Amino acid sequence: MSVTYPAGFTASGVTAGFKPSGLPDLGVLVGAPGTVAAGLFTTNRVSAAPVRLSRARLATGASRAVLVNSGQANAATGAAGDADALRSTAVASAALGLEADELFPCSTGVIGEPLHLDLFEAAVPTLVASLGRDGGDAFAHSIMTTDTVDKQAYADAPDEGFRVGGCAKGVGMIAPDLATMLAFVTVDAVVSARDLHRMAQEQLGARFNSLTVDDCTSTNDTVLLFASGVAGGAPVAPASTAWVHLSEAVGQVGESLVRQLAADAEGANHVVIVEITGAEADRDARVIAKAVANSPLVKTAVFGGDPNPGRVLQAVGASGVAVDPDRLDVWFGDVQLATGGVIAPEYFTDGGLIDAARAHMHARDVRIRVGVGDGHGKSRALGCDLSYDYVRINGEYTT
Amino acid sequence: MSVTYPAGFTASGVTAGFKPSGLPDLGVLVGAPGTVAAGLFTTNRVSAAPVRLSRARLATGASRAVLVNSGQANAATGAAGDADALRSTAVASAALGLEADELFPCSTGVIGEPLHLDLFEAAVPTLVASLGRDGGDAFAHSIMTTDTVDKQAYADAPDEGFRVGGCAKGVGMIAPDLATMLAFVTVDAVVSARDLHRMAQEQLGARFNSLTVDDCTSTNDTVLLFASGVAGGAPVAPASTAWVHLSEAVGQVGESLVRQLAADAEGANHVVIVEITGAEADRDARVIAKAVANSPLVKTAVFGGDPNPGRVLQAVGASGVAVDPDRLDVWFGDVQLATGGVIAPEYFTDGGLIDAARAHMHARDVRIRVGVGDGHGKSRALGCDLSYDYVRINGEYTT
Repeated sequence: MSVTYPAGFTASGVTAGFKPSGLPDLGVLVGAPGTVAAGLFTTNRVSAAPVRLSRARLATGASRAVLVNSGQANAATGAAGDADALRSTAVASAALGLEADELFPCSTGVIGEPLHLDLFEAAVPTLVASLGRDGGDAFAHSIMTTDTVDKQAYADAPDEGFRVGGCAKGVGMIAPDLATMLAFVTVDAVVSARDLHRMAQEQLGARFNSLTVDDCTSTNDTVLLFASGVAGGAPVAPASTAWVHLSEAVGQVGESLVRQLAADAEGANHVVIVEITGAEADRDARVIAKAVANSPLVKTAVFGGDPNPGRVLQAVGASGVAVDPDRLDVWFGDVQLATGGVIAPEYFTDGGLIDAARAHMHARDVRIRVGVGDGHGKSRALGCDLSYDYVRINGEYTT
Repeated sequence: MSVTYPAGFTASGVTAGFKPSGLPDLGVLVGAPGTVAAGLFTTNRVSAAPVRLSRARLATGASRAVLVNSGQANAATGAAGDADALRSTAVASAALGLEADELFPCSTGVIGEPLHLDLFEAAVPTLVASLGRDGGDAFAHSIMTTDTVDKQAYADAPDEGFRVGGCAKGVGMIAPDLATMLAFVTVDAVVSARDLHRMAQEQLGARFNSLTVDDCTSTNDTVLLFASGVAGGAPVAPASTAWVHLSEAVGQVGESLVRQLAADAEGANHVVIVEITGAEADRDARVIAKAVANSPLVKTAVFGGDPNPGRVLQAVGASGVAVDPDRLDVWFGDVQLATGGVIAPEYFTDGGLIDAARAHMHARDVRIRVGVGDGHGKSRALGCDLSYDYVRINGEYTT
């Protein structure tokens, strides 16, 4: 039930007909009155109409529910797209008994194709009638596009009795142009809007930003964190023990969703975990980690089962960060294959070191670790391999 | 004959045995005494030993010849690699009757694997004995790695009687880790080292930098421009008519080589020419052009024959340049499929506009044009599609 695991949330998901497949494609998640929200949105300058509207509504602080359609992204649709986003939330919020500005719109699907408002309006009564405490699963399914599995997670902060839930969809900018990573996380604790925003940035921002499938920031990426307050008690504020525990639980849910997204990335056979240590600053480490995780040569090497230190060194060197090439150490799993910028001769042989590294490449999670110096900066990126299926999914749907 | 088309250059190419294939893998190009050189090198912080040595020798201004081996890149080889690069040029320059610092070393091949100096020393006598005015073709073949065809070009500046030649190899950071784009361009005019450097930057730098196969700047990329001066006459200096004509001829050779490199990129079926206009500055346009040409979603769309304006808008918006999303126009060939950031409804239909755009996608050269505003900044990037073969070449060689 994921997003409805915490008290104070109901959800539902139905088939409106946006997707040719006939699978569920319209969902709603509603928090109890008093629910507050925090949001993180795509940094793409070409943002979809629902992203623009959600961003504006977040600024009012009033929103406690989210309406999601999958099938059409309502991106690159101009002023008509803005009007459609407004109209869809007006219809749904009226049926839900909410003020219009209490509802965030999210869309995912084909870029450029307009929303089908007729289908939308016809489905809203069923959507509202299906709302329930057990609707988290239906909601999680209704937001899927090319996802092969739904992504749900939950966690507890047992000392305080808080619950945290979440679901997500994506990832990859996704064929056939089914744009978007969407994630929704719910808690039942009392948290002010301002503190909730901080928690979203600390516990969800870095985690979701560490994820890269093809380095294609979509037009519709959205992460929303809701706090219903139904668990009661004093507001959970930074520096308190309750804050730490709630943060941990939110972080756990975020971590689980990010892993599920990487594992279900288009055509992926492996989750690639790139860890950078010893950088001058965390920011430098982050840039390097992303460069390695995004390198098509590293990604194809992982696909091919090749623990290839040369490609990792190439990606680190080209990252734009001023690393010292003579200080670079590279590990695949626990096997060190480059030391001080020099590739181990064993890489070119069989047996021993290289066999151990090759064995690691069969793991579902492939770990690539790079030490770049003796600084304290470190970071991590989550990616995936680049396979024939990525090319097929993104290249061949028109045939 | 390409690099030996201008007067004052001899070249040769032989098989030393660096490559398992037994194909030619050692080449040398020598300019007449007095030849001056200009060079452009990889910006990767992890640069190969020969790049470091060539860069140092360029600073002395004395170099007039280049020695190239294919098979081992001599990158990520540490101090031993530096010693090997020194030793290989010492042996070759002695046999050629050159001072050691008159010879640039270039290597391309497997990263991390040491040079085979024994094979090298055994092959040098044959290499030197084969030197000739007709050796350009053999030289062009000896530098190839995963190239399926050699890349050669020549041009004339007829008013002045100058000749320009060139050859190149690559491109892609190339499997199995056969790193590198190398290009060598020769002219017979008299040009000072300083002016030649300017000509290299103006006529070759931008062109070679506009090329992107997988955005993986290799450890060994090198472009060298030599002027033998054998054609005689006054030094060709900027602002003269001769300068303009010689620049044009050098630019023609560079353009031809860049096109040949893009066309032979790993697994490529199409050259993708991305043109950006209307940016605030050329620099902004360059960043956007590269972002579109590098986008795996755009590249797979080209592979699939899909004139996909949404993916282009996504890439432009995520480029980091502050574009106005409501000012973006996108063309495939001469067919406009997005206007003011809005995708043409015809994209989702059949017939007319979309059929014309789809027909363009069958061309060997696919043109994607994006207007981003009314500024004067413009730029172009050359890329290629992303195919199964790219994944196969880079992913499957270990199996």
